[in-house]
Amino acid sequence: MAKKVTKIGVLTSGGDAPGMNAAVRAVVRTGIYYGLEVYGIMRGYTGMVENDIIPMHSRSVANIIQRGGTILKTARCKEFLQKEGRQKAYNNLKDLGIDGLVIIGGDGSFRGADVFSREFDIPCIGIPGTIDKDIAGTDFTIGFDTAVNTAVESIDKIRDTADAHDRLFIIEVMGRDAGYIALHSGIATGAEHILIPERKTDMEELISSLQEKERRKKLVNMVVVAEGDEFGGGDQVAALVKERLPNVDTRLCILGHIQRGGSPTCLDRLIASRMGYSAVECLLEGRHNVMVGILNNRMQYTLLEKAVKSKQKISDEWMKIVKILAS
Amino acid sequence: MAKKVTKIGVLTSGGDAPGMNAAVRAVVRTGIYYGLEVYGIMRGYTGMVENDIIPMHSRSVANIIQRGGTILKTARCKEFLQKEGRQKAYNNLKDLGIDGLVIIGGDGSFRGADVFSREFDIPCIGIPGTIDKDIAGTDFTIGFDTAVNTAVESIDKIRDTADAHDRLFIIEVMGRDAGYIALHSGIATGAEHILIPERKTDMEELISSLQEKERRKKLVNMVVVAEGDEFGGGDQVAALVKERLPNVDTRLCILGHIQRGGSPTCLDRLIASRMGYSAVECLLEGRHNVMVGILNNRMQYTLLEKAVKSKQKISDEWMKIVKILAS
Amino acid sequence: MAKKVTKIGVLTSGGDAPGMNAAVRAVVRTGIYYGLEVYGIMRGYTGMVENDIIPMHSRSVANIIQRGGTILKTARCKEFLQKEGRQKAYNNLKDLGIDGLVIIGGDGSFRGADVFSREFDIPCIGIPGTIDKDIAGTDFTIGFDTAVNTAVESIDKIRDTADAHDRLFIIEVMGRDAGYIALHSGIATGAEHILIPERKTDMEELISSLQEKERRKKLVNMVVVAEGDEFGGGDQVAALVKERLPNVDTRLCILGHIQRGGSPTCLDRLIASRMGYSAVECLLEGRHNVMVGILNNRMQYTLLEKAVKSKQKISDEWMKIVKILAS
Amino acid sequence: MAKKVTKIGVLTSGGDAPGMNAAVRAVVRTGIYYGLEVYGIMRGYTGMVENDIIPMHSRSVANIIQRGGTILKTARCKEFLQKEGRQKAYNNLKDLGIDGLVIIGGDGSFRGADVFSREFDIPCIGIPGTIDKDIAGTDFTIGFDTAVNTAVESIDKIRDTADAHDRLFIIEVMGRDAGYIALHSGIATGAEHILIPERKTDMEELISSLQEKERRKKLVNMVVVAEGDEFGGGDQVAALVKERLPNVDTRLCILGHIQRGGSPTCLDRLIASRMGYSAVECLLEGRHNVMVGILNNRMQYTLLEKAVKSKQKISDEWMKIVKILAS
Repeated sequence: MAKKVTKIGVLTSGGDAPGMNAAVRAVVRTGIYYGLEVYGIMRGYTGMVENDIIPMHSRSVANIIQRGGTILKTARCKEFLQKEGRQKAYNNLKDLGIDGLVIIGGDGSFRGADVFSREFDIPCIGIPGTIDKDIAGTDFTIGFDTAVNTAVESIDKIRDTADAHDRLFIIEVMGRDAGYIALHSGIATGAEHILIPERKTDMEELISSLQEKERRKKLVNMVVVAEGDEFGGGDQVAALVKERLPNVDTRLCILGHIQRGGSPTCLDRLIASRMGYSAVECLLEGRHNVMVGILNNRMQYTLLEKAVKSKQKISDEWMKIVKILAS
Repeated sequence: MAKKVTKIGVLTSGGDAPGMNAAVRAVVRTGIYYGLEVYGIMRGYTGMVENDIIPMHSRSVANIIQRGGTILKTARCKEFLQKEGRQKAYNNLKDLGIDGLVIIGGDGSFRGADVFSREFDIPCIGIPGTIDKDIAGTDFTIGFDTAVNTAVESIDKIRDTADAHDRLFIIEVMGRDAGYIALHSGIATGAEHILIPERKTDMEELISSLQEKERRKKLVNMVVVAEGDEFGGGDQVAALVKERLPNVDTRLCILGHIQRGGSPTCLDRLIASRMGYSAVECLLEGRHNVMVGILNNRMQYTLLEKAVKSKQKISDEWMKIVKILAS
Repeated sequence: MAKKVTKIGVLTSGGDAPGMNAAVRAVVRTGIYYGLEVYGIMRGYTGMVENDIIPMHSRSVANIIQRGGTILKTARCKEFLQKEGRQKAYNNLKDLGIDGLVIIGGDGSFRGADVFSREFDIPCIGIPGTIDKDIAGTDFTIGFDTAVNTAVESIDKIRDTADAHDRLFIIEVMGRDAGYIALHSGIATGAEHILIPERKTDMEELISSLQEKERRKKLVNMVVVAEGDEFGGGDQVAALVKERLPNVDTRLCILGHIQRGGSPTCLDRLIASRMGYSAVECLLEGRHNVMVGILNNRMQYTLLEKAVKSKQKISDEWMKIVKILAS
Repeated sequence: MAKKVTKIGVLTSGGDAPGMNAAVRAVVRTGIYYGLEVYGIMRGYTGMVENDIIPMHSRSVANIIQRGGTILKTARCKEFLQKEGRQKAYNNLKDLGIDGLVIIGGDGSFRGADVFSREFDIPCIGIPGTIDKDIAGTDFTIGFDTAVNTAVESIDKIRDTADAHDRLFIIEVMGRDAGYIALHSGIATGAEHILIPERKTDMEELISSLQEKERRKKLVNMVVVAEGDEFGGGDQVAALVKERLPNVDTRLCILGHIQRGGSPTCLDRLIASRMGYSAVECLLEGRHNVMVGILNNRMQYTLLEKAVKSKQKISDEWMKIVKILAS
C-alpha cells in the first residue's frame, strides 16, 4: 500500500513554457486544500541538488496565473544525470520531509524523474509542459497554444508588409523535432508551404509552385519552416530559394524566443490548472511515476517511461488542406 | 443516388463569430479546387430571399483568414420562417443553378436549413459557428476560443485595477444559455465565483464566502457571471451583492460585444478551415442535411435536426477546481 | 536654502493608471542611485496616515515596468482631508526620517500634497498619473496612451460585429470631465460622431445625420461618447437615439474598467520613467511643491496649486476632421 | 498665383509603415469633401510610370484605418530615378488630368517628389511615413509608435523566458540610421544596455558591466541593439559578447519584419489622419513641395528638399536614465 504523502515539492524543468505558472499555482493550492505542505524547488533539478527549496503558501502563487515564464525558474541540470547528484537531491528532500514530487516539464525531465523515483522510492508525477506538443499520452501540452498564437500574430504582421511589397517570406518557427507549431500557424495564416520534420519536402515541387505563382503574379507568398526541418531551418531554406529564384524579392524571418514568452492563452491556463489539480490528486491516491495528460477530454495517466516524445504522423489530409486553401 | 453538385452557395447566419471568414475562405477554395462554382449569399437567408448573391473566386477570399466579422455579413431573416419566403429563396437559387448549400451558423440557422432542404430537396451542410460552444455533436464551435480569450484579456485588465484598489468586481460575459465562456474565462483568470445557467448558485454561500474573505483581508475578488445565469446577469448579481455587502467596494463590468469581434485565434482559424473543407467534401460525397463537427479529433457528421443546443452538464469537478484554486 | 533630502517616500494616489509602476520604479532606482533611502507608502495617503510604509530596494521594483496597476496600491483617503489625519501622517514620516515625497496621481492628490507640504514644510513633487490627460502643465499624463489604445482595440472589435450586422453602436469610454479618450479613440476608429464634455452636441443634427446615413444605406455607424458628456453618458445617448430612430438596430457598449488596466504602452512607460527620474532630481535640487510635466518635449515644473484639471478647448478643426473622415 | 487643383493622386512609397492606410483614407476623404477627384497610384512611383492608377471613392477607403500595410502597395522604383521614367510618369498623370500629388513615404521618396515637381510644375505634398522617426521637421512619423510598441511587446515576451532561465539576451530591433526604436523600446523594457548608431558604445565598459552583474548574480540581462549600430547589428554584438563572456548563457533574437506590420496604434492613426487632412488643405491653399509635419503639437511645413533624414543627437540624459533605471 502506498504511504500517504504529507509534504510535496513542485518544480519546473527544461525549456520554459507559458502556463507553467498556472500549473504551479494549481499544485500549490490543491496541495494546501488537502492539508499538504508544499515546497517550491527552484531552477528544476538544480534546486533539488543545491537545496534551493522554499515553502509555498496560497499567497505565494497569487496573481501569477496570467504570467509567462515560471516563478520557480527552470534549468537543465547536469549533476542530476549522475547518481551522486541524485543522492544529494534525495538527501535534501529527506531533510525537509518531502515525500512526493510534481515535475512540470518535457520528456527529458520525465526520464530524470523516473530514474530518481525508482532509486529512492519517492512518487513522482509529471505534467507535460512544452511548447512543442509532442509528448505521447496527451492531446495538450502546456504552452503550445500560447506559442502557436504568438507565431500566428507575428506572421499576420509579416503578411501586412509582405503584401505591401509583393514579397516572399520564409518564416522559421520553433520545433526541433515536432512540426505542430509550423503546421498550425502555417494553416492559420494561409501559408503557401509548410516544412516540418515529420514529412519529406519535395524542394523541386516547392520551387516550381513558387515559379508558377510568380508567373500568375501571385507575388505575396509565405513559407513556414520548423527549425528542425530536413533542410536545416529557415536560413537554409531561404538560401536555397534565393539561389533558385533570384528574381523573387525574398526575405527571412526567424521568430525565435518570443514564442516562449507572453501571457498564456485561456486554453493553456485551463489545462495547466486541471493538470496541476490532477497531479496532486494522483499523489493522494497513491499513484506514482505517471504523467497526467488529457486525451479525448478525459484525464489520462501514462507511465513516465512511456511519456516520451511522440512520433505522431501528420496526416496527408492536412497537407492537402494546406495546398488547397493557400491557392 | 445523390445528384452531383456543381454550383454551391455559402452563407453566414445568426450571431457573428470570429473565424467565420476562415470558414468561408475554406468553402470557396475547396469548392473551386474541386471544379465547383461557388456563390456567396449575403446577410444569411436574407440574401437568398432577396437574391443578393455574388460569385466568389479564389481572390474574393484572399487576406480574410485573419479578420473578425464576416465578409458575407449576417442577419436573422423573418421571411425565411415562412413557406413563401423560402419559396422565393429557392427560386433564386434555382435561377442561378445552385444545387448545394453550406450554412455557417448556430442551431437556429440549422433548423431553417433543415426545413428548407426537405421542402426543396437541396443538400445543406451546416458548420457550427457560434461563440457559445453549445451545439450537440461537436467539441468545437467557430468563435468560442477567440471570444473566451478576449474575455480573459479583459478580465486580466480588470484584475490590475481591482488589485490596485482592493475591489470586488462583478464581470458579466456572454452566454445566454451556456456558461462555457464564463466557466473557462473565470478559471483562467482566477475568479472566486462563477455563475452559469447550467448550475444553481447558492447566493447565501456566495455572500458568506465573500464576507469570510473580507474578514481575512482578501479584498481583491472577481465574480464572473454569464448573462443568462439564473439571477439575470451581472446587473442583478451586482445589485444583490451591494445590498448584502454595503461596505465592500463593488464594481460592475459588462464585457459585451467586444467578445464577438477581433482577429480569430489559431484554433478558431484551424477548425474553421477544416470544417469548411469538410463541408464541401460532404456535398461532393452526396451527404445532405448534416452538420460537420469535430469530436475527439475526428470529423463527425450530425443530422441537422439533431444539431441542437446541447445541454451538457458542467461537471462537479470543475466547480470544485474553481473553489480550490481561487482560495 | 533647502535642506538636503535623505529619505524619500513615494506613493500612488487616486484612480490607478497603467504606467504608475514604471514611475515608482524610476523614483526608487533614481533615489537609490543618488544615495537616498526610498520608502514605498501603501494605498496612497492612507498608508501615510496608517503607517503602512515599507523600505524599497532596487529589487523591489524589478520586473514591474510592464505591469498594469500599482504595486503600492492606491486609494482615496478621507482622513487626509482633515488636519488631524495629516498630523498623524506627518508623525509617521517624521518617525522614519522621511524628508521628501513623490506623489503619483491626479489633481486631487496634488491638492492634498500642496496643503500637507505647507503645513509641515516637507517638499512634495507631483507626477501626473491619470488616464484622463487633463492636467494643466503637461502634454502627457501617465496612463492616457494605454487607456486610449485599449479603447481603440475594443472599438475595432465592436466594428467587426457592427459591420457583420449593419448595426449602429453607441460606445461609452471613460472621461468624466475630459473628452480626450473619446476624441482620440473616436477618430482612430472612424467613429461617425464623438460626444465630449468640452463641447455642446446638437442632438438634432446627430439624429438627422444618422437618418441621412440610413437613407443611403450606410448602416454601420459608431458613436463614441465620453461618460461625462452633457447627456449623461452612453446609456442616455442610446436611449435618445433608440427613441428617435426606432428602426435602426442600435446597441450600447460601455467599455468601463478595462480601460484602466493592462500592460502600459511604450509611451506611458517612457514618460513615467522620465518623470520619475525628474521628480527625484527635483527633490535633490531643492524644488518643492511642483508637478513635473512634459511640455513640447521639455521638462516643465508647475506649482502644485496650478496643476489643476485643465479646461483645454478641443479645436474646431478636430471636430471638422471627425466629420470629414467618417463620411 | 497657384492654379487650383482639381484632381489629385496619392501614393505610398519606400518601406511600408503601419498607419499609411489611415493617411490614404484621410487624403481620399478630405479630397472628396472638397470636391476633388482622387486617384490612388499603385506601388509608389512604379504605378505612376506604369500607369497603374485607379479612381478612389469614399468607400474605397472604408474599414482600412485599422489595417497594417498599405492598400496602395509600395515599392522602390528605379525608372523614376531617370528623367525618361519621370516623363512617362508625368504623361500618365497629364492624361488623367491629375494636377496635384500626395506622397506618403520617407526622405528618399521626398527627394524624388521634389525633382519631379520642379521638372513638371506639379505641386507635391509629402507626408512622413517611416517607422524610423528620423525625418527633419516633424516630431512624429507614421509607423514609429506602432513599431516601437511591437518591439516592446516582443521584448516583454523575451524577458519572460530570460527570467525563467537566467539568461542574457541580445535583441536586435530595426533602425539602420536611427536608434529611436532601440532607445525607446530599450528604456520601456528595462534593458541594461542600448546600442544605437547615434552614439559610440564603449564595448569594454559594456563587458565589465555585464561581468559585474554576473558577479552579483543579476543574471537576467537584455541588450537592445539597433541594426545599424557601429558593431554591425545583433549578430556581431552577440558574437563579441559570447567571446568575452563564454560562461554566460547568451541568446540572440532578431525581431525583424514583425516591426513593420500590425494594426496601427491610436497615435499613428491620429497623426496619419491629421497629416492626410492637412496635405489636401496644403494643395488647396496652393502650397507646393512641402512636407507636412507636427512640431510641438502644431502643423509645420518643411520644404521637401529640407525634409531629409535628421541627425538628432540623443541626449546624454537619456543614456544616464538607461543606466540608472536598469541597475
